Amino acid sequence: MEEAHLNQVLLPHIAQQTDSRIVFVVLDGLGGVIGSEPTALQRSKHPNLDALARESGLGRHHPVGHGVTPGSGPGHFAIFGYDPIELDVGRGLLEALGVGVDVQQGDIAIRGNYCTVDETGVLVDRRAGRIATDASAPLSAAIGEAIAKIGDVRVEMHAGLQHRFALVLRGPGLEGHVADTDPQRTGVPPLLARSRDPQSAKTARIANAVIERAREVLAGRDVANSILLRGFSSRPTIATLGELAHLRPCAIAAYPAYRGVASMLGMEMIQGVGPKSSIADEVTALEDAWSKDHDFFFLHVKGTDSAGEDGNTDAKAAVIEEFDAVLPRIRSLNPDVIVITGDHSTPGPLAAHSWHPVPLLISGPWVESRKAETFDEVTCHDGFLGNNLPAPAILRLALAQAGKLTKFGA
Amino acid sequence: MEEAHLNQVLLPHIAQQTDSRIVFVVLDGLGGVIGSEPTALQRSKHPNLDALARESGLGRHHPVGHGVTPGSGPGHFAIFGYDPIELDVGRGLLEALGVGVDVQQGDIAIRGNYCTVDETGVLVDRRAGRIATDASAPLSAAIGEAIAKIGDVRVEMHAGLQHRFALVLRGPGLEGHVADTDPQRTGVPPLLARSRDPQSAKTARIANAVIERAREVLAGRDVANSILLRGFSSRPTIATLGELAHLRPCAIAAYPAYRGVASMLGMEMIQGVGPKSSIADEVTALEDAWSKDHDFFFLHVKGTDSAGEDGNTDAKAAVIEEFDAVLPRIRSLNPDVIVITGDHSTPGPLAAHSWHPVPLLISGPWVESRKAETFDEVTCHDGFLGNNLPAPAILRLALAQAGKLTKFGA
Repeated sequence: MEEAHLNQVLLPHIAQQTDSRIVFVVLDGLGGVIGSEPTALQRSKHPNLDALARESGLGRHHPVGHGVTPGSGPGHFAIFGYDPIELDVGRGLLEALGVGVDVQQGDIAIRGNYCTVDETGVLVDRRAGRIATDASAPLSAAIGEAIAKIGDVRVEMHAGLQHRFALVLRGPGLEGHVADTDPQRTGVPPLLARSRDPQSAKTARIANAVIERAREVLAGRDVANSILLRGFSSRPTIATLGELAHLRPCAIAAYPAYRGVASMLGMEMIQGVGPKSSIADEVTALEDAWSKDHDFFFLHVKGTDSAGEDGNTDAKAAVIEEFDAVLPRIRSLNPDVIVITGDHSTPGPLAAHSWHPVPLLISGPWVESRKAETFDEVTCHDGFLGNNLPAPAILRLALAQAGKLTKFGA
Repeated sequence: MEEAHLNQVLLPHIAQQTDSRIVFVVLDGLGGVIGSEPTALQRSKHPNLDALARESGLGRHHPVGHGVTPGSGPGHFAIFGYDPIELDVGRGLLEALGVGVDVQQGDIAIRGNYCTVDETGVLVDRRAGRIATDASAPLSAAIGEAIAKIGDVRVEMHAGLQHRFALVLRGPGLEGHVADTDPQRTGVPPLLARSRDPQSAKTARIANAVIERAREVLAGRDVANSILLRGFSSRPTIATLGELAHLRPCAIAAYPAYRGVASMLGMEMIQGVGPKSSIADEVTALEDAWSKDHDFFFLHVKGTDSAGEDGNTDAKAAVIEEFDAVLPRIRSLNPDVIVITGDHSTPGPLAAHSWHPVPLLISGPWVESRKAETFDEVTCHDGFLGNNLPAPAILRLALAQAGKLTKFGA
């Protein structure tokens, strides 16, 4: 991706560390489809967003490319300035990083589910009745203790939310090209872990041994009796935002996958927020973290995407209103630059992520504003930031407004 | 070209075969120059296009890049999602494929003209008075029969329209870097075929032998007495639309060059249309071809470009009206997505292809529409598809609307 490549070759040379501070808000799945029914942005009342929009640069961006519907990982990498194609990062890695595991080069991170199989080994529930976190965490502890090591490979089990866990394999000669064991449907037995290349054969062998030993440990319990493994992944080499743009970034994100993205990019994780936090709680965490130690504050809001995926545009509008209500608290911190955008669109009518371009707002001392009356897909499309912006350009535009970029060339 | 590269690396993984059907109409040379006099789109009445535009996404695209005037080959490759720079396909190949020759890897395809030289060998007519197809076809047959083989190289002559023919050389050690023998003006002798690199020396030698033997065969006839060769080309390796995007495409195109493009991209050629077919005849062929066996229907309309090249904007407007009259027949087939665009602009005032961005319309269930009152260069510029769209993105946007793309990444 050309804009991401430009970041790689140029930013380390033209970016400079300054005291100016950027707040980078991701309203997950923000965009809708301009059409016969109003989008969530169009049907919600958000006077504070409107007031900020009037004095900000507006536009719409494409996270991956025209027509491409991005997953959360690619969407976030793109808006933070990276090439989402090159960084086709496995979900296992994002989850493991997200629950706080220090995944290192050479480790294999895997996303796991507790599940239920019948006496013939056939899968009857892929999520073991979505067991509560309180019930699943002891299972992860017991399995981790029982296995610990297989040959020269250390096996780490990390509890996740509900039926989820992260499995990390650490040892010599592991590669991550292994297919999921989750058949994605019930009524059939779970698959064996199979390697897609010879270099990954050892990983598959260890994974199958883990599954077997986990079943032995789970045999005496009734909440779940087996596990499914997917998203086998290793940690790619990637420049942090510090290395790329001399930033000192931190992240306020409640959910593992987004914490995983932030961790990969070298953001310090602000503690004290979790899946039960409100947006106001997140802003409180931002206020607590507000200091000269950081100059880039990623604030992730999940509710817009969840409501969009549920096909509930009104609920999505309510999340936008909830964010609007706390925006004055963010502004009263006097950040030099505020970015408000999404990692992709999640239109209510589609009830899914989509390829539609994503609204973008960038405030700062030198923005070009059309003085739009409101902040929505149409005013963003017509804004002076342009309507076909490749997402990795957003980082440069924010850095420029923050006075963090020097001239390129004499 | 980045957007075409994105297609190559991404589409094979995210495209899925579905029953939804896309009609992809190319009104050749569609665009004009927004200016003091109305463009063909602006001066023609096209109520059916207007009605479709009101509920469609509009935009303008650049086939190759800002300021670049595309030939027909590059223009078509770009709008079908390919890199027109990388696919710098020789015209000889397109013509040979277009007249139905099965040009294979390693073959050299050449575009030929019958011509007239005087007794001193000086060119007096580069097209032998544009002799009729009836008169030129026997010449091609006679030359083909007389030559057949030179050394280890098979020589195939294929009759074309009027003074044109396609020459295909098949044998070991042939490369296509050979300069045209057409001096592009009269009053001088035709050039010798000269190779541009050592690997193409054999091709040049065979071509000169073909010219010499053709002159011997033609000596006894009065309609033409020599031949000119140009567009020496070999067949590049290229993923078909089936390989690239899991499509099952077909083409309705009357002229050899466009049939050649379609053939290269793996489209099945719908029979029964030719240079004398009206647009209505082409739509009849579309109706006959309409089935679940295909999910992508390329319909090529030549008249817009021909009129534009003649500098006759009124005639171009008439072709647009002729298309508008049959558009309801296309819509009544209930395609899931309709694309209407051009492969480049051919403004009447320029009387030639031009670099101006090309109007684009994409219909579908999830388009963003500004509910424009009409379909022309201005409403397309203002449309929500954007005004600087790189042409290879069109394929992805059409596939997305047709529900043929899955999410990229978790």
